[in-house]
Amino acid sequence: MTATAANSARDEKIRNFLQRQNLRAWIAWRPDELVMMTGCVPHWGASLLVYFDDVDPLLFVPPIEPREFIPPGLPVRDYPWGVLNCAEPYSFLLTAAAEELQSGIRREQVGTNRSSARSALPIQAAEQIPFPENFSEKISALAGQPDAAQQSAFLELYLRKTPEDIHAIRLANRIANIGLKVFFEHLQPGMSEVQVASAVESAIQCQTGREDIFHSRGWAMVQSGPNTADAGRFNRSTGRRLENGDPVLIELATCVNGYWSDLTRTAVVGCAIREAEKILTAVTEARRAALDVLQPGISAGEIDAAAWNKVADHGFSAFFTHPTGHHVVFRYHDPGFAIAPRESASLEPGMVITIEPGVYVKDHGAGARIEDNVLLTESGYEVLSRIERSNTA
Amino acid sequence: MTATAANSARDEKIRNFLQRQNLRAWIAWRPDELVMMTGCVPHWGASLLVYFDDVDPLLFVPPIEPREFIPPGLPVRDYPWGVLNCAEPYSFLLTAAAEELQSGIRREQVGTNRSSARSALPIQAAEQIPFPENFSEKISALAGQPDAAQQSAFLELYLRKTPEDIHAIRLANRIANIGLKVFFEHLQPGMSEVQVASAVESAIQCQTGREDIFHSRGWAMVQSGPNTADAGRFNRSTGRRLENGDPVLIELATCVNGYWSDLTRTAVVGCAIREAEKILTAVTEARRAALDVLQPGISAGEIDAAAWNKVADHGFSAFFTHPTGHHVVFRYHDPGFAIAPRESASLEPGMVITIEPGVYVKDHGAGARIEDNVLLTESGYEVLSRIERSNTA
Repeated sequence: MTATAANSARDEKIRNFLQRQNLRAWIAWRPDELVMMTGCVPHWGASLLVYFDDVDPLLFVPPIEPREFIPPGLPVRDYPWGVLNCAEPYSFLLTAAAEELQSGIRREQVGTNRSSARSALPIQAAEQIPFPENFSEKISALAGQPDAAQQSAFLELYLRKTPEDIHAIRLANRIANIGLKVFFEHLQPGMSEVQVASAVESAIQCQTGREDIFHSRGWAMVQSGPNTADAGRFNRSTGRRLENGDPVLIELATCVNGYWSDLTRTAVVGCAIREAEKILTAVTEARRAALDVLQPGISAGEIDAAAWNKVADHGFSAFFTHPTGHHVVFRYHDPGFAIAPRESASLEPGMVITIEPGVYVKDHGAGARIEDNVLLTESGYEVLSRIERSNTA
Repeated sequence: MTATAANSARDEKIRNFLQRQNLRAWIAWRPDELVMMTGCVPHWGASLLVYFDDVDPLLFVPPIEPREFIPPGLPVRDYPWGVLNCAEPYSFLLTAAAEELQSGIRREQVGTNRSSARSALPIQAAEQIPFPENFSEKISALAGQPDAAQQSAFLELYLRKTPEDIHAIRLANRIANIGLKVFFEHLQPGMSEVQVASAVESAIQCQTGREDIFHSRGWAMVQSGPNTADAGRFNRSTGRRLENGDPVLIELATCVNGYWSDLTRTAVVGCAIREAEKILTAVTEARRAALDVLQPGISAGEIDAAAWNKVADHGFSAFFTHPTGHHVVFRYHDPGFAIAPRESASLEPGMVITIEPGVYVKDHGAGARIEDNVLLTESGYEVLSRIERSNTA
């Protein structure tokens, strides 16, 4: 056992899970699974992890994978790759993984996530690795029969972040805040939505190489004026140019070293039109109301109700069309319970959720959302995203 | 039958395929499948297409999907969505699709692509829609048994582009060229790789809203100096600052309205070091050699050999570590045969391939690749990517 993997809170979390589930090993390959289990984000997305209950985990990577950002202490093994020298890399990979598991481990002692969705992106985000037909099924064939309780227990591992994770999450939010600052600086009449968005994305990308940041990328979606009324259905930037009085909403996904932040701000160019001002006030107060009740032990439904009631006080309840929040970090949207009506699951220290009340009124030609990422602590909470501008204070 | 879908070359291509395969309908949902079959790129990636042999196709979309860019004449039906009013949208979707197929169509008359890879990105590229476990299998359950010949025939539809496609491909390459121009303009000592990359991406994104461009996004990966030696294994931008004499390589994926371009340029800051100059010369000549033999009817292997032999003439054959090209358009990398050694498949008019010889020499601390997108015509070929700088002339 190497010093880096062992004794870490992350390693302890995974091994406790394996023990409780009577498992000797877990196989993982989706980017968010690798980040959650080892802190390692794959460049290509073609890496496969076998995590054992008793010895070091083993990461299989193709020779095309860069190595310098694989966490020290995480053992790595190559598998062949490339049209010119290996047309079928995956059969090698599956055979190698199977061999690792044959040393006294029975198939029913091996688990893997059965979801067919591969939600987080690898660093090479322009295309997914072309996994062969039934890749997921072939991985599953190395593991025991599907077990719903075991699958749920695995997804619960996403909920409570370790100190190593929290360090990385703070960094991701610090970088995302740089993007938000650029957003506010660019709210000038005549700027187009895509111009604002690309300025934000550029500021985030250019953090790469600073401190210990080897990968920093933002996805900024900016909607202005009447386009903000669509922001509850979709977020995207168009060529529309900002005008005085426009509400402007930014939905900003940021990924730093594999850890995701998910923020939204709504601001105004100059003086807001009256309808937009009312919506923005409702959302700002709803955010405050949700934070005011937030503490370990409170149910997700209670947080949602606090936000929802405040929106209702302003007469906008029919226009708050999504839950108040969700878990976040290993993906843009982590698995786990939503901060939604009647959800009885409770918040616990180490969880990171979004608080994102939003109101979108087509007839008013305006919408607003404010979204923060919030870490639950032993005694309360900490807003990870810096407070920006008066409308989020 | 509406005027837009009918009588189009694209529609004719799909219907001919269905007839030849004795199919009454095809189900598709991956972004590249939708673009190839209808020219429609999904925003969320949660759209599902049923293409019939005899009546209009039908596109199922959730209410969160923007509508204005769905091609006119393509019938659309909503299915419910949203945690607050529909926790299980996919069961509605699958039921609705099944109902459409029950009007006298037998299961064995329905086909779908069985690949588990979902390779192209929807417009919302920061995260994949969280499809439920076994979504792909559930779609497959609406179709007949897997049939290898049918699957191959479907993937062959990607190979020959229709006039509608070629119009869109020209636009994508025109926008990508704007990005390349920015790349060359930013090759100044002191600029970092990520600064150059984000300037290129910004220029591409800011084309959104011009002409009929509703979505324009670039993924620029810039490597400089010794980092270029890695460019055959992976492409990514770091914080390294350009220095005089550096070779600088840009790998640029561009997606405009759902159509992809895949280009590479290698240039030099000031005067190249001698080793980089030799590599760049070899690659430039190999590109020329590949183009010189390119014409309809030639085999992929012959094109690859032309490039390879020229690289070998310069003594670099051991460092040309990938095929000379691949099909491109509906994805960053389309399915289909590679332009690789001994590949006997022939080029035909309407195909679009990359020509991308590359040489990467770790010991010289330098690498180079030049990549163009080339359309095969009846009489020869057309380089879609504008020739830039002397090293690609």
